[in-house]
Amino acid sequence: MTLGRPRDPSTQRSILAATRALLATAGYDQISIDAIAREADVSRPTVYRRWPSKAHVVFDAVFGAAEGGDILTGTGDFATDLGHFVRGVCEFWRDPVVAGATMGILADRHRDPALSIRTQQLLDEDTRRRFGVIVESGIDQGVVAPHVDVDMLWDVLVGTALYAVQVQRRDDVTDVAERLCALATKGAAIRPEEQP
Amino acid sequence: MTLGRPRDPSTQRSILAATRALLATAGYDQISIDAIAREADVSRPTVYRRWPSKAHVVFDAVFGAAEGGDILTGTGDFATDLGHFVRGVCEFWRDPVVAGATMGILADRHRDPALSIRTQQLLDEDTRRRFGVIVESGIDQGVVAPHVDVDMLWDVLVGTALYAVQVQRRDDVTDVAERLCALATKGAAIRPEEQP
Repeated sequence: MTLGRPRDPSTQRSILAATRALLATAGYDQISIDAIAREADVSRPTVYRRWPSKAHVVFDAVFGAAEGGDILTGTGDFATDLGHFVRGVCEFWRDPVVAGATMGILADRHRDPALSIRTQQLLDEDTRRRFGVIVESGIDQGVVAPHVDVDMLWDVLVGTALYAVQVQRRDDVTDVAERLCALATKGAAIRPEEQP
Repeated sequence: MTLGRPRDPSTQRSILAATRALLATAGYDQISIDAIAREADVSRPTVYRRWPSKAHVVFDAVFGAAEGGDILTGTGDFATDLGHFVRGVCEFWRDPVVAGATMGILADRHRDPALSIRTQQLLDEDTRRRFGVIVESGIDQGVVAPHVDVDMLWDVLVGTALYAVQVQRRDDVTDVAERLCALATKGAAIRPEEQP
């Protein structure tokens, strides 16, 4: 390889696809750079030229491939868009490849400050920004409180979904998503119209 | 040791204390049953007689020792009790021993169905039951909606705290707890008195 020659993007894609294939059948701790290189039919140095460790390859294979576009719609109806987003997040966390990788990557962070910073946002900035657009449209439609805490709303939806689906292993994501949306929008406090 | 002789509870306590001491300084993946036995000054079989694997010892050392009583008060004022609980949960997740163990245990689950079942509830049933008592008292005080989804409220508070503190690494637990309580109780939707 000539110095400075651009890296072949198809090699990168096949390494990431090989990593996802391995994650679908083996645990994160059972996977190595060696196994990834073998599965992608490339050499170990070819992998190491692109990523400093297994955790970083897995991070890109799982979270880099996430299609925020699929779960972020803009139908114009806030309840529909919110429900679609929360159900999509629950299904994302439940995906066997994602579930296998998430906790392994998070457990590896303490050894790697760069990885630690990357994992502070598991879903990407673009997904987060587009979630903000849905909330803004809810405010415009008069169904979301104008001064809603958007960052905390994101944490509640994404974090609770992670906990319910990956920690508690709830299978019924439709039920989790509906109940989470209901509580996050209406809240637990008595509303004036409910007062006894 | 005579067959059937009861196990010495002080040995169990010192193994769990040794495990916590190791977790405070080393990563979960750097700890072994060997290291735990050495730190506790017992033999490997002494540890293996009580726990089938490292993950189970760590689980008991971290989650068995959690004092739900400290974070569950009953002052009679719902907002005070809820704030105290949520802040306590955030501080629990932020504790270096807890943070070091949680993701490692969760990452090890796929190899061990018994561990998988245990980790579906990281905080114990008694803590959950006592949380229900606080919510009930909020309903009695007329500040919590009578038909509130208590299980989802628990997931929102415990899961969001886990995500904010352990995944996003938010340092300011007071801020996280206050904003989480505010959103979980009031919700994101416009309330009648806020309508434009």
